[in-house]
Amino acid sequence: MQIIPKILNELQQIVGEKFVFIDDETRYDYGHDETEDYNFPPHVVVKPTTVEEVSAIMKMANINKIPVTPIGAKTGLSGGALSIHGGIGLSMERFNKIINIDEQNLQVITEPGVITQILKDAVGEKGLFYPVDPSSMGSCFIGGNIAENSGGARAVKYGVTKDYVLNLEVVLPNGEIIWTGANTLKNSTGYNLTQLMVGSEGTLGVITKIVLKLIPKVSHNVLMLVPFYKAEQACEAVSAIFRAGIVPSALEFMERDAIDWTMKYVEGVSVSIKDEIQAHLLIEVDGNYTDILFQEAEKIMQVVEQFEIDEVLFADSDEQKNALWKLRRAVGEAVKSNSVYKEEDTVVPRYELPTLLKGVKDIGNKYGFQTVCYGHAGDGNLHINIVKGNMTDENWQTEVPKGVVEIFELTVKLKGTLSGEHGIGYVQKDFMPIAFSEMELELMKGIKKVFDINNIMNPGKILPHSL
Amino acid sequence: MQIIPKILNELQQIVGEKFVFIDDETRYDYGHDETEDYNFPPHVVVKPTTVEEVSAIMKMANINKIPVTPIGAKTGLSGGALSIHGGIGLSMERFNKIINIDEQNLQVITEPGVITQILKDAVGEKGLFYPVDPSSMGSCFIGGNIAENSGGARAVKYGVTKDYVLNLEVVLPNGEIIWTGANTLKNSTGYNLTQLMVGSEGTLGVITKIVLKLIPKVSHNVLMLVPFYKAEQACEAVSAIFRAGIVPSALEFMERDAIDWTMKYVEGVSVSIKDEIQAHLLIEVDGNYTDILFQEAEKIMQVVEQFEIDEVLFADSDEQKNALWKLRRAVGEAVKSNSVYKEEDTVVPRYELPTLLKGVKDIGNKYGFQTVCYGHAGDGNLHINIVKGNMTDENWQTEVPKGVVEIFELTVKLKGTLSGEHGIGYVQKDFMPIAFSEMELELMKGIKKVFDINNIMNPGKILPHSL
Repeated sequence: MQIIPKILNELQQIVGEKFVFIDDETRYDYGHDETEDYNFPPHVVVKPTTVEEVSAIMKMANINKIPVTPIGAKTGLSGGALSIHGGIGLSMERFNKIINIDEQNLQVITEPGVITQILKDAVGEKGLFYPVDPSSMGSCFIGGNIAENSGGARAVKYGVTKDYVLNLEVVLPNGEIIWTGANTLKNSTGYNLTQLMVGSEGTLGVITKIVLKLIPKVSHNVLMLVPFYKAEQACEAVSAIFRAGIVPSALEFMERDAIDWTMKYVEGVSVSIKDEIQAHLLIEVDGNYTDILFQEAEKIMQVVEQFEIDEVLFADSDEQKNALWKLRRAVGEAVKSNSVYKEEDTVVPRYELPTLLKGVKDIGNKYGFQTVCYGHAGDGNLHINIVKGNMTDENWQTEVPKGVVEIFELTVKLKGTLSGEHGIGYVQKDFMPIAFSEMELELMKGIKKVFDINNIMNPGKILPHSL
Repeated sequence: MQIIPKILNELQQIVGEKFVFIDDETRYDYGHDETEDYNFPPHVVVKPTTVEEVSAIMKMANINKIPVTPIGAKTGLSGGALSIHGGIGLSMERFNKIINIDEQNLQVITEPGVITQILKDAVGEKGLFYPVDPSSMGSCFIGGNIAENSGGARAVKYGVTKDYVLNLEVVLPNGEIIWTGANTLKNSTGYNLTQLMVGSEGTLGVITKIVLKLIPKVSHNVLMLVPFYKAEQACEAVSAIFRAGIVPSALEFMERDAIDWTMKYVEGVSVSIKDEIQAHLLIEVDGNYTDILFQEAEKIMQVVEQFEIDEVLFADSDEQKNALWKLRRAVGEAVKSNSVYKEEDTVVPRYELPTLLKGVKDIGNKYGFQTVCYGHAGDGNLHINIVKGNMTDENWQTEVPKGVVEIFELTVKLKGTLSGEHGIGYVQKDFMPIAFSEMELELMKGIKKVFDINNIMNPGKILPHSL
C-alpha cells in the first residue's frame, strides 16, 4: 500500500502541511515503541491537535479503508502502537493540555498526550493525588496508560488506570465523536463503554479527552528493602503481609540478578548485598499519620522476620527513597540492556507467586533459557525477562516460544492471565487462545466489529491471528 | 405466547419437575421486584441449581426464541427482573452457596443467589471485608448487585460493586459457558468482558459464579449526625469535607421530610429535631486506629461548623450506630409507604449537588409535584422520590413525566447521568437518549446483538424503545 497524493493532500488540508510527515526518518521514528527491537513504520505520520481534526482524519481513513494506528509516547511493551500494516500513524503528542483540575469534585480533565508524571505533579500541586505510577511514568502518556490499562507499583493499594477513569471522549473509526459515560463516581446507566475502552489498545477508537478521579494527597510514607536468602520465601512473605491486615502502598519483588544488573546500569545507587541473598522485597506503606506508619512498618517487620532474611534497610531520607525507587524502576531497562530478551507480563493471584516463580525456573531449565524475574508482587504481577545470553540463535527461535507457551499455560492454570499491565498488542496476540476459549474470543471479535466494521482502527492487535 | 407442553416437558427434564412452576401464585410472585407496583409474570418459573442446567435452559430457549429473564431477590428498583414479555423466569435463588473464601488471596468465589449481608458476614468472620453495602443488603442477592452495579453508603470510600468483581462465570444466551477474565487484581488481556457484564442487568448472559476481591477488615468507625438549617448548605458541606483532605466511609444526605417520615415508619428510632432544621448529613469515618478517627472527626466538625448547623449527634455505642443506620436505610421504604411515588436515582459530580437539589425543587414547583430527596451525597448520588400526595391522577400521568425529563436533562447538564446505582432496566429505558447520543446507543445495541442475536436475554431492558 502507498499513500496516494490525494490522501496526503486531504491529510494536509485537515491538520496543516507541517503536521504531515512522509520522510523516512520520521516514519521510522514513529514505527517503534519499547517492544524488543520491532519497527513497523506508518506510511505517513499525522499530528492532529483537535478532536475535530481526529474526526476528519478517521472519516477519511474509514472511507478509504486506510489503517490508522494511534501513537502515544512510544513506551509500550506489547507493540500496541506499531503500524504493522503501515497506513496512518496518528501521533497524539499535540494533545498535551491538562484542561481542568477540578478541586471541587476531585477530578481532572486532560488530553491524552500529557506525560503521566506531569499530570501527577500538576494535581499534586493542588493537594490532589493521581496514584497510578507505571515505571515509565516520566515519559509515557496518560492516553497510552488508558489504552493499555497500565498498572505500576502503587496498584496494590490504589488500583490500576481503569479504577480512575470516569469518562472518555472518543473518536470512533467512522469519525463520530462520543462520550463513553458521565463524570460521576457511580454509574449504572447502560453498558460500561468507558471500561470497554480502557485496555482496548487503540483498537476501538481514539481517546481525545479523559476525565479521571483523584483522591486527596497522602503526606507520608515509609520504605524498606528486605533481603531474602530464598527467593520463594520472598514470594511467600507477600501474602503473609496482607494476611496480617496490612495493605502496603507498594510491594515489589526483585530477583538477585535484577538488582545486580541494575546497579551496574544505574549510576549513583548502591546497596551492599551478601552473596547468599536470592531476592529482595521493596515494601512501602503510606498515610497521613507517621505514628501509624511506624506501627505498620513494625508489623511488617514481625511478618518478614518469620522468614530467612538479612538486615532490613529502612530508607531514612527522601534521597534514599528516591534512590531505591530509581533502582527498582530501572530494572526493566537494565535487564534488557544486558542481552537480547523477551519480556512476559504474567499475573496470578498473589499467593500463587512462589509456584509461578518455581515453574518459570523449571520451564527455563527444560528449554535451556535463563530468566530474570521482578515486578509487582503485591498484586501477583511478575515480569519475566527471558534473556538470550549465550543461547544459540536457533534455540532462541525454536525453544523459547515453547517455553513461553508453557509459562502462559501455568499462569492460566493458577487462575492468572497473560498480561497484568503491558497489554497484548502485537507480540502476545497469538497466545490469547491459552487464556480464552473460542467463544470468548468470538465475543471480543464481535465487539471489535461493532466499533470498527472496516477493521481500520489499529488492525492486527489483541485478537489472535488477526490481520 | 404460551409455554407449550413440549417446552414445559424439556424444562422439567432439565431441572426436575418440582423446580418448574406454572401456577399463577408463583408466576405473579416472580413477576415483580421493588419497582413501584409493576407485575409482569413469566409464563413459567424455573429454578435451576447448576451451571449445566442454566446452559441447557438457555440453549433450549435460544432454539425456540423464548425470552428468559434472570430473577434474583426481586429487590431491584428499575424493573430489571420483570418478565415484560413473559417467557421463562429464571430464578437464581438455588445458586446460594459461598464456594470458597480464599484467605490467602483475599478473594471469595460465590454463587449469585447469596444474600449480600450473608456474604459480608461470612467473609467478616475470616477477618475480611466486602465493603459494598446497598441499602437492601439484608435481602438482595450478590448476583443482582453485579447485574445492576449496585452502590450503597460506603461507595464514597470503597467504591461500588464493579470495583470488586474480578471474574465471572456466565452462561451466554446461546447456552455456552464462559469466564470473563482472570482471578487477578491486574489484567490487560483483551477487552474487559467482566466490566461489560457488570451493570448489564441480565441482558447479556446469566451470571453463575462470581470471583470478588476482598480487603482486610476495618476495625473501628465514628458516626455522627449533623443537622443543617439549610438543605443546600448540607450539600455544600459535602464537597468541603473532601477538600479538607478527609475521605469519609459514608456521607449520607437526608432531607427533613425523609427523616420525619422514616421515624414514623421505623420503630424504636427517635431523634429530636428542631423545627427549623431542613436536612441532615450522616457522616462516618472508619479505620483501624481510634486516635486517628477522632482527629478526623474533629476536622469534619471544623468544616461543618462553618455552616449553619444545630448540635451534632455522635453515636456513642454500637446500638446507637445501628439505630442511625437503620433509620437511614429505611428512608426509601418509608417515603414510598407514604404515597404513590416515582423514584429517580440521579447522580452528578458531588459539588453539583446543591445545584441539582435546587433544580429539582424548582422543577417540582413548575409541574406541581412534591419531592423527598436523600441519598449518597458523598458520591453525588441523590435519590429523588416524587410523591403523588394530593396530586390528581391526570396531573400525575401528564405533568410528572415532563418534570422527570427536566430533572434528567439537568443531571446530564451537570455532567451527571440517569442512574447511579439502580440501573435503567424497564422503567428508565426511554430516558436513555437524554444521556446518550444516537451513536452511543447504536454501540450498545451492537454489543447486545453480539451476545444475544435472537434478543431472548431479558429483552426490552436498558435500550430505549427496545422490545
